[in-house]
Amino acid sequence: MSAAADPVVIIGLGAMGLGMARSLLRAGLPVTGIDRDAAAMAAFEADGGGVAVDRPARDAALRQAAAVVLVVVNAAQTEAVLFGEDGIAPHLRPGAVVISCATFAPEHAVDFEARLARQGLLYLDAPISGGAAKAAEGRLSIMASGRPEAFAAARGALDAMAETVFELGDAAGPGSAMKIVNQLLAGVHIAATAEALTFGVGQGIEVGRMVDVISRCAGTSWMFENRGPFIAAGDYRPHSAVEIFVKDLGIVAEAAEKGTLSVPLAKAALARFHAAREAGLGREGDVAVAKVYAREGNLALPGVPANDDKGGD
Amino acid sequence: MSAAADPVVIIGLGAMGLGMARSLLRAGLPVTGIDRDAAAMAAFEADGGGVAVDRPARDAALRQAAAVVLVVVNAAQTEAVLFGEDGIAPHLRPGAVVISCATFAPEHAVDFEARLARQGLLYLDAPISGGAAKAAEGRLSIMASGRPEAFAAARGALDAMAETVFELGDAAGPGSAMKIVNQLLAGVHIAATAEALTFGVGQGIEVGRMVDVISRCAGTSWMFENRGPFIAAGDYRPHSAVEIFVKDLGIVAEAAEKGTLSVPLAKAALARFHAAREAGLGREGDVAVAKVYAREGNLALPGVPANDDKGGD
Repeated sequence: MSAAADPVVIIGLGAMGLGMARSLLRAGLPVTGIDRDAAAMAAFEADGGGVAVDRPARDAALRQAAAVVLVVVNAAQTEAVLFGEDGIAPHLRPGAVVISCATFAPEHAVDFEARLARQGLLYLDAPISGGAAKAAEGRLSIMASGRPEAFAAARGALDAMAETVFELGDAAGPGSAMKIVNQLLAGVHIAATAEALTFGVGQGIEVGRMVDVISRCAGTSWMFENRGPFIAAGDYRPHSAVEIFVKDLGIVAEAAEKGTLSVPLAKAALARFHAAREAGLGREGDVAVAKVYAREGNLALPGVPANDDKGGD
Repeated sequence: MSAAADPVVIIGLGAMGLGMARSLLRAGLPVTGIDRDAAAMAAFEADGGGVAVDRPARDAALRQAAAVVLVVVNAAQTEAVLFGEDGIAPHLRPGAVVISCATFAPEHAVDFEARLARQGLLYLDAPISGGAAKAAEGRLSIMASGRPEAFAAARGALDAMAETVFELGDAAGPGSAMKIVNQLLAGVHIAATAEALTFGVGQGIEVGRMVDVISRCAGTSWMFENRGPFIAAGDYRPHSAVEIFVKDLGIVAEAAEKGTLSVPLAKAALARFHAAREAGLGREGDVAVAKVYAREGNLALPGVPANDDKGGD
């Protein structure tokens, strides 16, 4: 496809964005990276092949781009990048597609699509799942919805970044809706992993043994197998931070309230992530919810002595 | 090993016990089956190779048995089968092992082991995971702890029934402890599956599509992949009933209370299973918690119209 040579701009070079940029480069696409953080831009250039730019070079790159991938955190950042002061929308060429990867409520996706359409621009509602390692391997899952023209314009970039692209509908909205369903489960499963492992410690079982055994039993989950080893190793680095699930489960709770749906498990998990943030653990890995449980029960975990009030080692 | 020819008695010929009995027979072990339900005993005999007995033939079989496998529901049934009126313990030969598969708090396992030891009998704390299909294939996971002599006496039966035998300690207790950790997760994941799928229906997504997509994303769990398709198919038959998780999450909540541990997700899930039972769904499949969510949100699910107050189709 001719799309293989179309220039791509990627905005947001954190762990996910950097990995996605690498996958785009590996697929032979010309990639320009943009981030507010100079260190992230330097890391992208040092990585080889990528060009990181600031204004005015930024605006020139945007004018060339067939696709812009937004790997920012939330709807407010997406809004600011697209339409804020120094926003990118006025600099894009007609027919360019914005591939939006942040997690937010579907109504924002619908709004962004409509506003870009008025400027002759395409929008793909394209939240991602899989974590930084899969991002770097080009093996993400992308939950995408949008107009057929948006899919067509995004195809080269999607194929470079994803192992699986779920095509969920021909307008923005269903992609974001599927992602928040996924985040409901992911957030509940992380909190449940922390709850089960601390409960088991209270029953006298060693954390690593539980991770080994339960991973091969009916109680397992993707998150249990991914996050359980971090708790067993006392690793609370922010591979994905507590704050992400404060945000994403907050989106779930708000959407449920609007729809008069009950989500008691999501709310119980959200309360745990809130408690972790209030304990000063917001920027630790999301498994730091285990510290909240351990403190309440006066239990020790690997790397976290009992009654440790300072956030572990 | 000579254990391969040792006679086994299995007590409890429900879906799990019947599958396990078949696996024992397939391994060449002489198996006698016992159940209070005549239909279950007839099914076992019709299956070929098995002998189902009632008293006094029962007591003769017990005197021959090297191992007795108990596939009953809870601690009270285990207590009654072992030590109640017409209990089996007085009829077992010295050195025989009781392989106890029910789910209950570890303190009961410790108690049963001690009381059997006083009669010269061995006890293996051996809860199972995997469901009826794996039971029939001899591919269960068994979370076992007990004395080395108990493991040795049980080995032939364990190998016939299990793909994996986790050896968790040299006394009763850790097997049951690991199982209730597993059940905490399993129960939370079933309720979370119901919560996420109904939430997603409220967001306009079709249930089967969610099952397909989330199964390949970070929100998946063993239970999501196993139970999600039942909700998508409107299948509320009791492959495993609501009542099982009312029981097992009740054990978790009680154990947590004794240990002053917090288990808010387990309690939120338990409340959902209670609500399902109170709605008259206790003997439906555990996925009937989805009906509770659907009713509260006035949503339709496959096979369950909106505002259906009679328990589905």
